[in-house]
Amino acid sequence: MAVLCRPAIAVPEHTITMEETLDLARRLHPDHPQLELVLRLIGNTGVRKRHLIRPIAQTLRHPGFTARNEVYQREARARVPEVTRSALANAELEPTDIDLIVYVSCTGFTMPSLTAWLINTMGFRSDTRQIPIAQLGCAAGGAAINRAHDFCTAYPRANALIVACEFCSLCYQPTDLGVGSLLSNGLFGDAVAAAVVRGHGGTGVSLEHNGSYLIPDTVDWISYAVRDTGFHFLLDKRVPRTMEPLAPVLAELAGRLHWDASTLDFYVIHAGGPRILDDLSRFLGVSPEMFRHSRATLTEYGNIASAVVLDALARCCAEGGLRPGDRGMIAGFGPGITAEMSLGTWAHDQRPEPAAERVHRSCR
Amino acid sequence: MAVLCRPAIAVPEHTITMEETLDLARRLHPDHPQLELVLRLIGNTGVRKRHLIRPIAQTLRHPGFTARNEVYQREARARVPEVTRSALANAELEPTDIDLIVYVSCTGFTMPSLTAWLINTMGFRSDTRQIPIAQLGCAAGGAAINRAHDFCTAYPRANALIVACEFCSLCYQPTDLGVGSLLSNGLFGDAVAAAVVRGHGGTGVSLEHNGSYLIPDTVDWISYAVRDTGFHFLLDKRVPRTMEPLAPVLAELAGRLHWDASTLDFYVIHAGGPRILDDLSRFLGVSPEMFRHSRATLTEYGNIASAVVLDALARCCAEGGLRPGDRGMIAGFGPGITAEMSLGTWAHDQRPEPAAERVHRSCR
Repeated sequence: MAVLCRPAIAVPEHTITMEETLDLARRLHPDHPQLELVLRLIGNTGVRKRHLIRPIAQTLRHPGFTARNEVYQREARARVPEVTRSALANAELEPTDIDLIVYVSCTGFTMPSLTAWLINTMGFRSDTRQIPIAQLGCAAGGAAINRAHDFCTAYPRANALIVACEFCSLCYQPTDLGVGSLLSNGLFGDAVAAAVVRGHGGTGVSLEHNGSYLIPDTVDWISYAVRDTGFHFLLDKRVPRTMEPLAPVLAELAGRLHWDASTLDFYVIHAGGPRILDDLSRFLGVSPEMFRHSRATLTEYGNIASAVVLDALARCCAEGGLRPGDRGMIAGFGPGITAEMSLGTWAHDQRPEPAAERVHRSCR
Repeated sequence: MAVLCRPAIAVPEHTITMEETLDLARRLHPDHPQLELVLRLIGNTGVRKRHLIRPIAQTLRHPGFTARNEVYQREARARVPEVTRSALANAELEPTDIDLIVYVSCTGFTMPSLTAWLINTMGFRSDTRQIPIAQLGCAAGGAAINRAHDFCTAYPRANALIVACEFCSLCYQPTDLGVGSLLSNGLFGDAVAAAVVRGHGGTGVSLEHNGSYLIPDTVDWISYAVRDTGFHFLLDKRVPRTMEPLAPVLAELAGRLHWDASTLDFYVIHAGGPRILDDLSRFLGVSPEMFRHSRATLTEYGNIASAVVLDALARCCAEGGLRPGDRGMIAGFGPGITAEMSLGTWAHDQRPEPAAERVHRSCR
């Protein structure tokens, strides 16, 4: 059974607090007709602090798509390897043990994707499979877990590395002044996350079943306008209300394993925004406290796109307290509108090795 | 065993011949210091004709990345559904039978990818998985086959749809004047291709084994510079010589099935250019005639990127003559430099149904 091991996360060194974000909105848009609404929406996100790859003054300048994409590539190469090494260490694997790299990132675009550079520079094997995904946005973290799970189901002795690299600050568009854009400017943050799905062995979430769901006729609700100036993120105001149709889908998926989605032992949910978490706990019939890891991600890092589910899972691992067999759900949401869902049980590595060593290396 | 069924292909209604391409190069670049070399290189491609989504006069204008990407989305929506329907018919399946859509395209970028729109408009199920890949370039056709194969290995009753939509003419960059760019302007064409990988049943290539290979330290040999003006394709002059290191990799992969790569019954090879095909046949020890389907694709359509392998396979199916158990190889090459390779045997649908009906529906 494939096991999703403890993720590794890194957030950049520059930060912006909620107060700084609100001050900035007031300073940049003093005459915006809906400024008060924007300030209230940003305040409601509960995002106390976000991390950025560059200081805020640089972040606010738009030097063109050419220059931004160069920054993306440079920063990705600078920041991804260390997180990748940590994720491999969490899984007790070496680069040569990896058979597939799923690299997800919607905030920069390169061809070849970073997978080729990683293989060359980090000692992965030349026959490592590559799945680069740029077009699933925030849902790509869940998609990466699910495609890695599928791969290890096909090849039970294989291991898959997932990397989510999101520099949302590189999609800041100073000329986009809609309420959705100004809210997004106060919501998203930068982060790099990685995790390994082991085909056998490992401590973490033993992946039992996964599923995808597309909410019909919502293609335009979360999207990019791709322009000379790069990716312009468009967020429809109906998005926060999508948990009402998605909760029954999650419940139905759990039902296939004869699980009750309202009584699981852990939840790793995409923290798209506060309403997403509030509504999903309500519609699933789960105490809001059960979404505390997602809430912590949102509060401390903002919405870090495809990296959210990996960060929330890392927090779940760090908290500890899960027992083998405990049941949980992972769910990412993004453009489509697509939900990428996974069900699994907590598993301790069953491989024979000295107990002391296992404790030392364990996720918890 | 997963079976790759007969692909469907459509090329656009506008065409440009080799003579017109050469005339155009002379007219646009009369003072280019390497014009004669460029003309010779284009002449050597053997590309007699290419198809374009728009008339040549429009193709040559660059109205900006914004406008080009809008053309991409409009033309993809206009052209993909019919090819998809044909591929489904070739596999004797309905949209509701499909569990995964792998959509590969490196010549336009949208988020969400076209998968979401296809699911909404063509009657695919809401729980269809989506793998959109934009960053594997010409290798993505092979990658799509291999990831669909993996998926059907994990879920043997599943079916996967592959769509390759490549409008290379939308990457024409009038300001790129290097020899590699001018050669590319005379090499690439537009096409849409689709095929289904059936988890069980179906007539086509029964997929036995697949593999990927990255040639070390060639990241910059095939790449995009991503700029305000869109994707600028960069082609290093060392690329045509990459078959020497790749031939042993293909031979080794075949060896794992105890097959001799030089004596297979059919070959479906990415027609990146004439040298690719010449060298690979030489280094594999295969008669050039065995690559006739790839050569025909190149001659009639130019290099149609990720769609090449699907078109070459469609030609192989159309020619007929393959017997159940005949062994073959599929190989796509692209940025990384990445090779995506697959080995399979020709299979006739074994499901019980009236013989007359089977003949009627058969691929051959």
